[in-house]
Amino acid sequence: MAMSGVLRPGHMQLKVLDLEESIDFYTNVVGLIQTGREGDRAYFKAWDERDHHSLVLRGAGEAGMDFFGFKVTDDATLAKLEADLNAYGVTTERIPAGDLLETGERVRFEIASGHQIELYSQKTAVGTPMGDTNPPPWCAAAEQGIAPIRMDHALLYGPDIEKVQALFVDVLGFYLVEHILLEDGETDLAIWLSCSTKAHDIAFVRNEEPGKLHHTAFLLESWEKVLRAADLMSMNQVSIDMGPTRHGVTRGTTIYAFDNSGNRFETFCGGYATYPDIPPITWTWDEVGPAVFYHDRQLNPAFLDVYT
Amino acid sequence: MAMSGVLRPGHMQLKVLDLEESIDFYTNVVGLIQTGREGDRAYFKAWDERDHHSLVLRGAGEAGMDFFGFKVTDDATLAKLEADLNAYGVTTERIPAGDLLETGERVRFEIASGHQIELYSQKTAVGTPMGDTNPPPWCAAAEQGIAPIRMDHALLYGPDIEKVQALFVDVLGFYLVEHILLEDGETDLAIWLSCSTKAHDIAFVRNEEPGKLHHTAFLLESWEKVLRAADLMSMNQVSIDMGPTRHGVTRGTTIYAFDNSGNRFETFCGGYATYPDIPPITWTWDEVGPAVFYHDRQLNPAFLDVYT
Amino acid sequence: MAMSGVLRPGHMQLKVLDLEESIDFYTNVVGLIQTGREGDRAYFKAWDERDHHSLVLRGAGEAGMDFFGFKVTDDATLAKLEADLNAYGVTTERIPAGDLLETGERVRFEIASGHQIELYSQKTAVGTPMGDTNPPPWCAAAEQGIAPIRMDHALLYGPDIEKVQALFVDVLGFYLVEHILLEDGETDLAIWLSCSTKAHDIAFVRNEEPGKLHHTAFLLESWEKVLRAADLMSMNQVSIDMGPTRHGVTRGTTIYAFDNSGNRFETFCGGYATYPDIPPITWTWDEVGPAVFYHDRQLNPAFLDVYT
Amino acid sequence: MAMSGVLRPGHMQLKVLDLEESIDFYTNVVGLIQTGREGDRAYFKAWDERDHHSLVLRGAGEAGMDFFGFKVTDDATLAKLEADLNAYGVTTERIPAGDLLETGERVRFEIASGHQIELYSQKTAVGTPMGDTNPPPWCAAAEQGIAPIRMDHALLYGPDIEKVQALFVDVLGFYLVEHILLEDGETDLAIWLSCSTKAHDIAFVRNEEPGKLHHTAFLLESWEKVLRAADLMSMNQVSIDMGPTRHGVTRGTTIYAFDNSGNRFETFCGGYATYPDIPPITWTWDEVGPAVFYHDRQLNPAFLDVYT
Repeated sequence: MAMSGVLRPGHMQLKVLDLEESIDFYTNVVGLIQTGREGDRAYFKAWDERDHHSLVLRGAGEAGMDFFGFKVTDDATLAKLEADLNAYGVTTERIPAGDLLETGERVRFEIASGHQIELYSQKTAVGTPMGDTNPPPWCAAAEQGIAPIRMDHALLYGPDIEKVQALFVDVLGFYLVEHILLEDGETDLAIWLSCSTKAHDIAFVRNEEPGKLHHTAFLLESWEKVLRAADLMSMNQVSIDMGPTRHGVTRGTTIYAFDNSGNRFETFCGGYATYPDIPPITWTWDEVGPAVFYHDRQLNPAFLDVYT
Repeated sequence: MAMSGVLRPGHMQLKVLDLEESIDFYTNVVGLIQTGREGDRAYFKAWDERDHHSLVLRGAGEAGMDFFGFKVTDDATLAKLEADLNAYGVTTERIPAGDLLETGERVRFEIASGHQIELYSQKTAVGTPMGDTNPPPWCAAAEQGIAPIRMDHALLYGPDIEKVQALFVDVLGFYLVEHILLEDGETDLAIWLSCSTKAHDIAFVRNEEPGKLHHTAFLLESWEKVLRAADLMSMNQVSIDMGPTRHGVTRGTTIYAFDNSGNRFETFCGGYATYPDIPPITWTWDEVGPAVFYHDRQLNPAFLDVYT
Repeated sequence: MAMSGVLRPGHMQLKVLDLEESIDFYTNVVGLIQTGREGDRAYFKAWDERDHHSLVLRGAGEAGMDFFGFKVTDDATLAKLEADLNAYGVTTERIPAGDLLETGERVRFEIASGHQIELYSQKTAVGTPMGDTNPPPWCAAAEQGIAPIRMDHALLYGPDIEKVQALFVDVLGFYLVEHILLEDGETDLAIWLSCSTKAHDIAFVRNEEPGKLHHTAFLLESWEKVLRAADLMSMNQVSIDMGPTRHGVTRGTTIYAFDNSGNRFETFCGGYATYPDIPPITWTWDEVGPAVFYHDRQLNPAFLDVYT
Repeated sequence: MAMSGVLRPGHMQLKVLDLEESIDFYTNVVGLIQTGREGDRAYFKAWDERDHHSLVLRGAGEAGMDFFGFKVTDDATLAKLEADLNAYGVTTERIPAGDLLETGERVRFEIASGHQIELYSQKTAVGTPMGDTNPPPWCAAAEQGIAPIRMDHALLYGPDIEKVQALFVDVLGFYLVEHILLEDGETDLAIWLSCSTKAHDIAFVRNEEPGKLHHTAFLLESWEKVLRAADLMSMNQVSIDMGPTRHGVTRGTTIYAFDNSGNRFETFCGGYATYPDIPPITWTWDEVGPAVFYHDRQLNPAFLDVYT
């Protein structure tokens, strides 16, 4: 109770065009810590994450996301959620333990938007450089590259986001935090869903083409760290899509940029804490500009059209 | 699931020596919004809180805390938790709806440390000045006085904190986030408990005298807001106990100060997000200084001895 | 000696299309304090400025700048600089005391870029709300609107900026802090000049059309105040040209926006301190993007083409 | 003109008890860059300083300051100021070029407070890691240790501070920015003097014992960097005297700490910009607490009694 069931986003497997180049980028620019390598996959965690990895890069012929996984409380919860998904009419697949390094069995399923989602309960806790006894508040790795605190959420593009919302809410225990309406004032353009007190653990934008990734988001500690991230992007010739700025949705401060395969990532800070008893915030179509980019009050052209 | 059961600290009823003076203090210095008044009680919420109140001041002959209440998901959860408490051997009392303004029935019980704890599921949502449709990220009230985002947690002093921890963990679904050991290396001096992803929703320090309040904590948005709070305290001749500084425990940045009745309050920022699958952080006795005040590396004399 | 001669930018007279509307804008959005009004002119100072005004709005049929004035040490210095200007071949005009409210005689002259520049030594010190005895570090006015600390500098567009630089350096005691070269690697596109330890007290961009204003700049205290300024701009539907971002030149963080007459203004923070013994920083043409907007690494279309 | 004569504090020679240990401390904790070594002296600069050094450590049997030097515009100014000092009745000594590494002739003299002050015009510009062409806003060295921007000022303890003030104002072109009065309401306890737009380039506290050092101050870029500095001090077991907090005088945010020889140093941020036409700020004796430590509103015992 209190905090149970689906806990948090646990990993994203991302397709990259040149694995070695991407390892360099996510290590030295994004500032993640490489924790593993097998075949065409490299594993990374943020300095303040304890589990073995939160980002997996896979060398591939195209950019985009392979799957996005959530950690659940324990094995019993994993089994229960699998049964609930099946009862809901969702076909699931068990990926064997060890398929991802240091990770237990995963329950994988496709959602209506065309994305592969996973649940898992076991991943080796490798800990942080600060340790669990008398830890300092941060460590040297917190200043190597952009150095986010954690992989925080993903924004995915695909169709049928009503069905996606229903599945996440009815079966997985998420709740709707914010949504942007289309011109008809009824249909959602985008939805932000939480399984915790975060303003978003996953979000979806309605899009004809299924299974697409808009961005993977990494959490920073302050608006000053957002500035530092933007500086480091420029020092490293990273292509910034937008920012530093603030989102209307979630209030978070943000930068969108592209990795060297064209995958968009976000380095963001803030966003309020919320709870399932709080009614969702609604953004109307005429305010879609400030909803997404609060300062400019308009979408940049790339926001809706560029994804991987 | 995901986020259910006990959601969050919902209210603190605080005893103050001079109600009118305290209303002025909590309105104009702390920067809360008064939302109600009946008899010897005044009700307050923070600008970003949606429920009717989170702080209740009661005029009394002494300072201290009357009770601390947690909001739970719904009526069914309230009934279930009441039954669980009773089954655990805890006597509960139902306080009728309306006893606190705009609040439903509350289930009250005393814990081993001598504090009155409450659960409730209903409180009128009066909303924020920003509204729920196309809201700006903040509003004028966010700059009236210290203007915290929310009443966040409390630190309570009393005996038998092992029993307290067991009750919160076994019955109410909390988990231990951090603890400080005494010299014997076994017994806890202090424990920090969470029912969410917050590093603490409630905390206890072992103390012979039962039922005491160390501080009520109000959340700020940034370290710069902590500086602003300290400035406002000085402008208003508020007695600062400690800070601005950082805690080792939770990593939060903080100021401790006293209201005009001698009740300590904290204006703090930060602290990491955590989850129940993450093992607790342990502070050993020789590091109790940095555990509490990370920069000075020693307790100030008032920390252990002054409470209400 | 040490700090003498030309001290600092002291006032900008700005043409606005609708004086009443602009008074409202500069009071309630920009957050300046109105200190006077006579005829078609309104006078403003920032909360932390002591002299009577730093911005004068004049109702006019077009936007743009009337003149930009620098305060000098004393009357003797004013006379000396006037003589030096005349000896340098610059025609000067004495504007009588009182022509600008609470301001002594001004020495006005036109520079090669077509701008009217003034020197003056006397302006009534009206002080700050904090006072000069036991002052608090800030006051309520510091949170009314964007509330800059001071009018800081101006960026002007016009031809013959070499002649302008020579005049400012040889006669007025300024020094070159940074410059951006054109494609030929020899001619300057833009120059930043200081008469103090500020990275810029005035700056010029080469432009065929003379006498134009690119922006008036107002200083903020921190990057967090820059965010707050951007939020307030959006809350007030102010058109943001660019930012929040960082300049390569001066390292300052910045937002460019337009007032309701189309005059660009900057709310910025930072920039390093410098000294006349430090050699100028040079930006080459291929790096003009990061020189101006360090994060995006490219000029936005409006930067060179939109001015008043 | 404008900025001429005495430019800025250029170097402090500090006595340390164990030179090797102190080199380690100022390199790895304070985060200065060692630029030279000869005999019992080691030379350091901050990452954003261009001249060869600003701090010289000398191994000695006791802690304290040997001398504090100001850079002046050029050789002619040095000669002129030397003549002015002599005319004022001050005996000066010429220290030969090369006595300090990469430094020209220095004019040394003793002031009434018993301190050795120097003027010099030549020091090799070794530049910054960012360079002078297309420089990034910061570099890796900006995150090695506390990594201040510059050595900024010193606060010295000694008698006859009226005479000191007269000399700095009448001969060296400084001006009084703030002062704290003693109980008699006439005599100064402390004075802050500027030769620039900084709120202090040097400061003095009245003290019976002559020639003493209260602290050397290093400038940080933001309040968040002040927090980072405090964190690093704790991580390195540095003894913090006071802070993070704010000064009433200058408004700067600050930490005072001790190096491993017992010399106090300050890592601070902010403080307003000022000008010689602005009247000094006066603090009265009853407000000496907030004048020095604005938040606590009282001096800590060490402030007046501990110096080297």
